[in-house]
Amino acid sequence: MKKFKESLKLAKLAKISNGKLILIENLNINSVSTLEEADKTSLAFYQNKKFHNSFLQSKAGVILIPKDENISGLPKRNYILCEKPYFSFLMAVSYFLEKEKIQISGQNIHPNASIDSSVKLPKNIRIAANVIIEKNVEFGNNIEIEANTIVKNNSQIGDNSHIFPNVTIYQEVSIGKNVHIHAGCVIGSDGFGYLWDGKKHRKIPQIGKVIIEDNVELGANVTVDRGTLGDTIIREGSKIDNLVQIGHNVILGKNSIVCAQSGIAGSSEIGENTILAGQVGVADHIKVGKNVTVAAKSGVSKNVPNGKTIFGYPATDAHLQRRMIASLRELPKMRKILHRLIEEEKNGTKK
Amino acid sequence: MKKFKESLKLAKLAKISNGKLILIENLNINSVSTLEEADKTSLAFYQNKKFHNSFLQSKAGVILIPKDENISGLPKRNYILCEKPYFSFLMAVSYFLEKEKIQISGQNIHPNASIDSSVKLPKNIRIAANVIIEKNVEFGNNIEIEANTIVKNNSQIGDNSHIFPNVTIYQEVSIGKNVHIHAGCVIGSDGFGYLWDGKKHRKIPQIGKVIIEDNVELGANVTVDRGTLGDTIIREGSKIDNLVQIGHNVILGKNSIVCAQSGIAGSSEIGENTILAGQVGVADHIKVGKNVTVAAKSGVSKNVPNGKTIFGYPATDAHLQRRMIASLRELPKMRKILHRLIEEEKNGTKK
Amino acid sequence: MKKFKESLKLAKLAKISNGKLILIENLNINSVSTLEEADKTSLAFYQNKKFHNSFLQSKAGVILIPKDENISGLPKRNYILCEKPYFSFLMAVSYFLEKEKIQISGQNIHPNASIDSSVKLPKNIRIAANVIIEKNVEFGNNIEIEANTIVKNNSQIGDNSHIFPNVTIYQEVSIGKNVHIHAGCVIGSDGFGYLWDGKKHRKIPQIGKVIIEDNVELGANVTVDRGTLGDTIIREGSKIDNLVQIGHNVILGKNSIVCAQSGIAGSSEIGENTILAGQVGVADHIKVGKNVTVAAKSGVSKNVPNGKTIFGYPATDAHLQRRMIASLRELPKMRKILHRLIEEEKNGTKK
Repeated sequence: MKKFKESLKLAKLAKISNGKLILIENLNINSVSTLEEADKTSLAFYQNKKFHNSFLQSKAGVILIPKDENISGLPKRNYILCEKPYFSFLMAVSYFLEKEKIQISGQNIHPNASIDSSVKLPKNIRIAANVIIEKNVEFGNNIEIEANTIVKNNSQIGDNSHIFPNVTIYQEVSIGKNVHIHAGCVIGSDGFGYLWDGKKHRKIPQIGKVIIEDNVELGANVTVDRGTLGDTIIREGSKIDNLVQIGHNVILGKNSIVCAQSGIAGSSEIGENTILAGQVGVADHIKVGKNVTVAAKSGVSKNVPNGKTIFGYPATDAHLQRRMIASLRELPKMRKILHRLIEEEKNGTKK
Repeated sequence: MKKFKESLKLAKLAKISNGKLILIENLNINSVSTLEEADKTSLAFYQNKKFHNSFLQSKAGVILIPKDENISGLPKRNYILCEKPYFSFLMAVSYFLEKEKIQISGQNIHPNASIDSSVKLPKNIRIAANVIIEKNVEFGNNIEIEANTIVKNNSQIGDNSHIFPNVTIYQEVSIGKNVHIHAGCVIGSDGFGYLWDGKKHRKIPQIGKVIIEDNVELGANVTVDRGTLGDTIIREGSKIDNLVQIGHNVILGKNSIVCAQSGIAGSSEIGENTILAGQVGVADHIKVGKNVTVAAKSGVSKNVPNGKTIFGYPATDAHLQRRMIASLRELPKMRKILHRLIEEEKNGTKK
Repeated sequence: MKKFKESLKLAKLAKISNGKLILIENLNINSVSTLEEADKTSLAFYQNKKFHNSFLQSKAGVILIPKDENISGLPKRNYILCEKPYFSFLMAVSYFLEKEKIQISGQNIHPNASIDSSVKLPKNIRIAANVIIEKNVEFGNNIEIEANTIVKNNSQIGDNSHIFPNVTIYQEVSIGKNVHIHAGCVIGSDGFGYLWDGKKHRKIPQIGKVIIEDNVELGANVTVDRGTLGDTIIREGSKIDNLVQIGHNVILGKNSIVCAQSGIAGSSEIGENTILAGQVGVADHIKVGKNVTVAAKSGVSKNVPNGKTIFGYPATDAHLQRRMIASLRELPKMRKILHRLIEEEKNGTKK
C-alpha cells in the first residue's frame, strides 16, 4: 500500500478515473493498494477474474471495476464503474504522485556540485551534491540531476529530463526532452572497435556521438556506446530496461522496447514498435524490422522482416521454433526407432 | 599469498582449525597461501588428491590435512590433522581477517559527506567521502558506507551492514542486518512497466518498495527494481553475484543463490535454497520451487516444481535435456538415413 | 562528421596516410567523415564496393581510395591512393585527435578530490572532482582519473593509464601501463564463493588480488572479481567490452577479445588471441585454448583445444553445430515421416 499526504473525495476520484461512482459510504481516500492489502483509506482495482476471491474479501474503501460488472450480487461498498479499471487506477495513482511531486523551481544547486563557468543554467533546475557539469554543457528547462552524476563537455539535456544518481554522460551526448536515465547508466563510452595490425589490437578512434530523443527511459546500469564515425541513436519514445547494452552506431526505432540484459551489437538497426524481450542478443550490422517481437533469450543473427515474431538461438520464426522444440523432445525416441529400423533392415527382417 | 600483521603460534592455529597438531618445528605463521606459493610463514591446506604433487613439494610452514591421512610416508614438517581441511583453512583465514579489521567505533563521518539533518546517526558508523544520506534514512548500529554512495529518502539500513562505493539506494528501500552490497549496485530503480495507449508507451507508476532481508550479499553492479504496487523481496541469506537483474515484485526465496548475469523478470517467485547458475533467465510471473537447480544459461519459461534440476533453452528436465542434446548430435546422420529409407521406399527396393 | 581545431594541407594528410596524393584542388582539411556527410573540409575513405554510390556522390574534400583503383573513370577531385584506405583513415583520425588532446602536465588535482597523505603523486597527473585515493596507492606518470572514481588501499596504476568516471577499484588491484577503464567498472569486488554449512551459506573469504596488465581496455560497467586465494589476471593487450563479468581467479590470455555481456566463471583460463563474441558464457574451471573463436551467445562447458571455432549451447564445433541446426529445421518433417513409416509397419503394408 502506498499512502499519500493528500486525501481525495470519492466523487473527485470517479472524475479522475473517468468512471461512474456507486456510492454507499462517504470516505476520504489517501492510499492506493492491491485488493489484499487495502483498507478503508484505499483505492484498489479489480479486472482479472483470477483475483475474484481477493476482490470479494477486500477491505478497500473504493474499488474500480469493469462497467459491465453486475453489482447487484457484490458486497455492499463503494465502486467506480469504468472502461478499463487498471488504466483508471494508474491515472488515479499518477494524479496522487503529481500532487506530491516537489516542483523544480528556481536554480537549486548544491554547494558541492562543480559546474563549469561556461555553462548557462536555465530558469528551473535542481543539481544535487557532487554533480560535475563540464564545459559547454547545454540545459533545457525544468531539469533534475541527482547526486554524483557527471555530464562531460558539450553534452545537452532537454526540458523536463531527469538524470538519477551515479550516471556518467560522456562528451557530445545529446539528450532530448522528458528523458529519464536511471542510476548507474553510462552514455557515450567508446564503441568496441580494434584493428589487428599483426602484433596488437589497435584502437579504432570512436568520434561519433550519442543522440537520445524525447520521451526515452533508460533503466539502471544501461550502457550506450558512442558511434565510431556516425552516431548511436535512440529514437523517440523508446524504453530500455536495466543492464542493456547498446553498441556503437545502433539505431533503435521509435517506441521500441528493450527488456533487461539484452544487447544490440554495433551498427544494427531496430525498427519502430519492436520488442526485444529479456536477454536477447542482436548481432552486428543486422536490420530488424518494425513491429517485430523477439522472444526472450533469442539470438538474432539475420535480418528480420516487419511484423515477424521470432524466437530461438539462432532466432527463427516462432511457430517453426515451437514445432522444432516439440519434435526435439521426441528426438531420443525417434533415434531409438530409427536404430531399430536399420537393425531390422540389416537383419533382413524386412525383406 | 596473503600476509597478515599478526603472527599465530601453531598450537593456536590448531585450536582455531579444530584440528590436531603434528609438531616438527616451532614456527610463527602470519600468512595463508596455496600450496605452491607458500613459504615457512604460511598456512596452507591439502584436500584434493589432484594437488598431491604440489602438496609434496610445498614449502608451507604448516599444512591442514585430512585426519585419516597416513603421515608416516609424508615429508617431515608441521601438519594439522582435521575433519575438513578446506573448511578449517577458511576458519583460520577468517580469524586472521577479523583481527585486521578496523572496528567501526564512534561516529566517523567524512567532512565531504552530505547527511540530511533529519537523520539520526547510530553509536557506531563510518561514512566515507561524498556519501549522500537523504531525509529520514534510518540506521542500525555498526554500519559502514563507502565513498560516493547515495541513500535516498526513507530508506533503512540494518546493523552491521556494509555498503561499498558508488552504490545507489533509491527511496523506501529496506535493508536488513549483515547485508553486504558491492560497488555499483542500484537498488530500488523503477520496475519496467508501460501501457501502450495507442500512441505511446505510458509509464506505469512504480510505487512499491524493495525489502532486502538479513545476511544477503549482492555482487557488483547488480540491479534490483522496486515493486510496482507490492514489494520486491530478497529473503534472508540469499547470495547474488555480479550484474544480476531482479525485476519488480520478484520474491527471491531464503538462502537462494543467483550467479552472475542471471535475470529474474517481474513478479516471478523463486523458492528457498534454489540455485540459478550463470546467465539464467526466468520469465515473468513464473514460480520456481524450493531446492531447484537451474543450469547455466537456461531460460525458464514455465513453473518448476520443488527439487527439480532443469537445464536448457527452453529449460526442461536436465536428464531429458542431456538425452536431447546427445540425440541432436546424431541428427545430421539420422537425417541422411531417413532420406535413404524414403528413397528406397520410392524406388520400390523395399517391396 | 567530426570537426577539429587544426587544419591540415593535403600533402601532409597524404604523408600521414602513407599514400599518394592525386591533387585537383588545393584545400585545407579539418574534419573526418563518412562519405555521405562529408563536405569540402572533410577527409573520407572508400574501400567497400557496397558504398560505391555514396562514393560517387560524396562531397568530401579528399577521399582515401585503394591504390589499384582506376581513377580515370572517377569524378574529378582530390584522392589519396593507399594500401588500406580504412587503416590510413584511422591513422589520420588519430593524428587529429592527438593534436587536440590536452596534455597532462604537472599535478592537476581538483580541490574536492580526497587523497590520502600516504600517497606520492607523480610528476604529471590529473585527478578530477570527488575522486578518492586511499592509503598507499601507487601511481606511475601521466595518469588521468576522472570524477567520482575511487581507488582503495594499496592499489597501483601504471603510466599513461586513464580511469573514467564513477569507477570503483578495490584494494590491492594492480593496473598496468596504458590501461583504459571506462565508467562504472568495478575491479576487485569479492569473488562469489560460499560454503553451505548445513544451516546457511558461509562466505569464503576473498583475499586474492586482481592484476590488469599493460594495454588493456575495459568497457563500461564491467565487473572483475578479485581472486579467492590466488589472483585474477587480465593479460597484456586484452580488450573487454561493456557489461562483461570476469569471475575470481580467471586468467584471460594476452590479446584476447571479450565482447559485451559475456561472462567467465571462476578459475577458468582463456588462451591468447581468443575471441569471445557477445553474451558468451564460460563455465567455471574450464580451459579455453589459444586462437579460439567462440560465437555469440555460446555456452562453453568443456575445455576447448587451440584454434577451434565453436558455437552453440552447449558450445560444440561450429561446423557440426551448423549441420545440427540445419537438420533441426527439418526435424518436424522427419518426425512425420518416421511416424508414417511406423504406421505402415504396424499395418503390415511393408510386409
